[in-house]
Amino acid sequence: MTFMPAYGAAVKKRLFTPGPTPIPESVLLKMSEPIIHHRNPEFQEILTRMHDNLKYLFQTDHPVVALTCSGTGGVEATFVSLFSPGDTIISVNNGKFGERWVRMPRTFGLEVEEIAIPWGSAPTVEQILDALKRRPEAKAVYLTQSETSTGTATDVKAIAAAVNEEYDALVCVDGISAVGAMELRFDEWGIDVCITGSQKGLMVPPGLAFVAVSARAIAAMERSTMPRFYLDLGRALKSYKANDTPWTPAITLLIGVDVSLRLIREEGLEKVWERHTRLSNAVRAGVSGMGLRLFSQNPSNAVTAVWMPEGIDWKAFNRVLKHDHGITIAGGQDSFAGKLFRISHLGYYDDLDVIAVISAIEKSFVACGYQFEVGSGLSSAQALLV
Amino acid sequence: MTFMPAYGAAVKKRLFTPGPTPIPESVLLKMSEPIIHHRNPEFQEILTRMHDNLKYLFQTDHPVVALTCSGTGGVEATFVSLFSPGDTIISVNNGKFGERWVRMPRTFGLEVEEIAIPWGSAPTVEQILDALKRRPEAKAVYLTQSETSTGTATDVKAIAAAVNEEYDALVCVDGISAVGAMELRFDEWGIDVCITGSQKGLMVPPGLAFVAVSARAIAAMERSTMPRFYLDLGRALKSYKANDTPWTPAITLLIGVDVSLRLIREEGLEKVWERHTRLSNAVRAGVSGMGLRLFSQNPSNAVTAVWMPEGIDWKAFNRVLKHDHGITIAGGQDSFAGKLFRISHLGYYDDLDVIAVISAIEKSFVACGYQFEVGSGLSSAQALLV
Repeated sequence: MTFMPAYGAAVKKRLFTPGPTPIPESVLLKMSEPIIHHRNPEFQEILTRMHDNLKYLFQTDHPVVALTCSGTGGVEATFVSLFSPGDTIISVNNGKFGERWVRMPRTFGLEVEEIAIPWGSAPTVEQILDALKRRPEAKAVYLTQSETSTGTATDVKAIAAAVNEEYDALVCVDGISAVGAMELRFDEWGIDVCITGSQKGLMVPPGLAFVAVSARAIAAMERSTMPRFYLDLGRALKSYKANDTPWTPAITLLIGVDVSLRLIREEGLEKVWERHTRLSNAVRAGVSGMGLRLFSQNPSNAVTAVWMPEGIDWKAFNRVLKHDHGITIAGGQDSFAGKLFRISHLGYYDDLDVIAVISAIEKSFVACGYQFEVGSGLSSAQALLV
Repeated sequence: MTFMPAYGAAVKKRLFTPGPTPIPESVLLKMSEPIIHHRNPEFQEILTRMHDNLKYLFQTDHPVVALTCSGTGGVEATFVSLFSPGDTIISVNNGKFGERWVRMPRTFGLEVEEIAIPWGSAPTVEQILDALKRRPEAKAVYLTQSETSTGTATDVKAIAAAVNEEYDALVCVDGISAVGAMELRFDEWGIDVCITGSQKGLMVPPGLAFVAVSARAIAAMERSTMPRFYLDLGRALKSYKANDTPWTPAITLLIGVDVSLRLIREEGLEKVWERHTRLSNAVRAGVSGMGLRLFSQNPSNAVTAVWMPEGIDWKAFNRVLKHDHGITIAGGQDSFAGKLFRISHLGYYDDLDVIAVISAIEKSFVACGYQFEVGSGLSSAQALLV
């Protein structure tokens, strides 16, 4: 029996990863109640309220369906449900997830026009329109609002407006680490598809994806000839209308999401966005204050990617952070492994959490021999939070 | 149904009071299991292990009995179980609790020689010996190792050594906010009675007192003629020897203490003391760094009392701290109400908790118009923690 956190006896565990994210106590408590059956009126009541609150979260009057799968499964559901083999789509690859949204549709026989841009950069409106000029037959444009691997934000609003003005292509948004953290107005911005997962801004363990679908997206489903079954958005949509699910859902997680959506509604969505802006600004100020450089050209409010300082070993740094200070952050991915670290501020965080992570990062850099003025990161973050 | 903390939607609650203190997750989880009966082998096993670990906590081979009452009840148990009406005791009054240990024994007909010294000061060996010279018939000397109202430590080791060298008086220690936070070696230091409560260094909700008793204290019990029943240490001791309790105990809290004692044993008692020293030093550096003055002449490692800065209203400051930052600290008591504030670092705290409370205090002082360099408290605390 282990009573204390795994690393060091009196070190508390604190999670700063962009999924899973920390879970509010009220969500944990609700999820710990005895399980109920998913085909009874009590659960239907939960789904009914959750469906309503999901619309609020996505700022839409259109359906937002829940799928029992990860965010990746949610994105796959859109490829297999909205398109047919041979269809062309445009997909932006500016990070590990964008790259996945190029590879995945090719697996299903879609023609993918890839917009490959450097990691840490965001696509411009011009780059999207150029691709549409090259491939005017494209059925959809896939964007990642917050690229988790690089902490980069894409201007979904501007791109959606430009695409919608000239083209019929659906605007499809990977909002997995963006929804609940960054401004997103599904209807007002003219988005057709947006996906998120339970373990991000929704502050619930992983296992659920949520997909908002516009009327045009629903129409596209009806034309699609792609073979599909479990991830069929059409089936999910049919059940959704009856406040039900097509297959056995992850009941406990849905109950958690019901609570977390009520938390978001109680705080107010715009306040939630503002809080993420505030905390991400403080994290950036904190790491800049210790003389570190941000990785992204256009930083996301969900996660901040930072260059490791010259001569400091990521693994050694991360070991100190984890073992001595109980903090879990994320490293760089693929070719940036060892070169970056990433601090999440997505979900259930407040000012004092940010101060704590900056404190621990300072201490870990001191332990690793990085030269800077101790307290400078803290003071810089604190200055934005007073 | 309230999902979020009472004050402000996205503000997390953080408790920095010297009782109750925060409760480790493993303790909370264990206490949430279905209740068991207190007269069955499973519970007896828990008591047996707890009794063994209580000896470790007090550093004694003598019995440490558990009573279902608050710390005050635990102290009362010693007055009514060890003495007889008309007996003389010496009691140090250097704060709200010391004052209580003067009033309480008088209620039961004891003659109390009060050593009244200013709040914030600790008794010297000479003051104790002088009192014993005046009242050589005294049956006991009562000391408060950590005076919670003023954040003041008393040198129990030195006083016990001096008393034991020349007198037969029992050395009785209110260790309520000291045990588990500050060095205490019951046997080695020649202590006869020491009391603590569950909601302090033991990191469990309130409702239990623990009383360690030396062989001399047990002998005194046998001579005592004081009327007593529920708080009879002799009855408790008899049950203790059978790993049982005389009355229905607070089962859930005892189960919590069993876990918390295992946490303390796993961390190591000396490491626990060192952690409290480290955190209290950082808190003192933090508040001094923002230009504030410590109240105590001899600060305790359990709680730090700080003078409110000139012209800043305690209530306004505390309101900001609580409503805007979710932090609960303690104010001054009695004649120091409004003049002091007290930050607890007793129990389940780590470095980053201290950084968080200093951050919130800085922010609250900024909001209240106190002039200082923002970040100075954080940097001063951080300097001691790297």
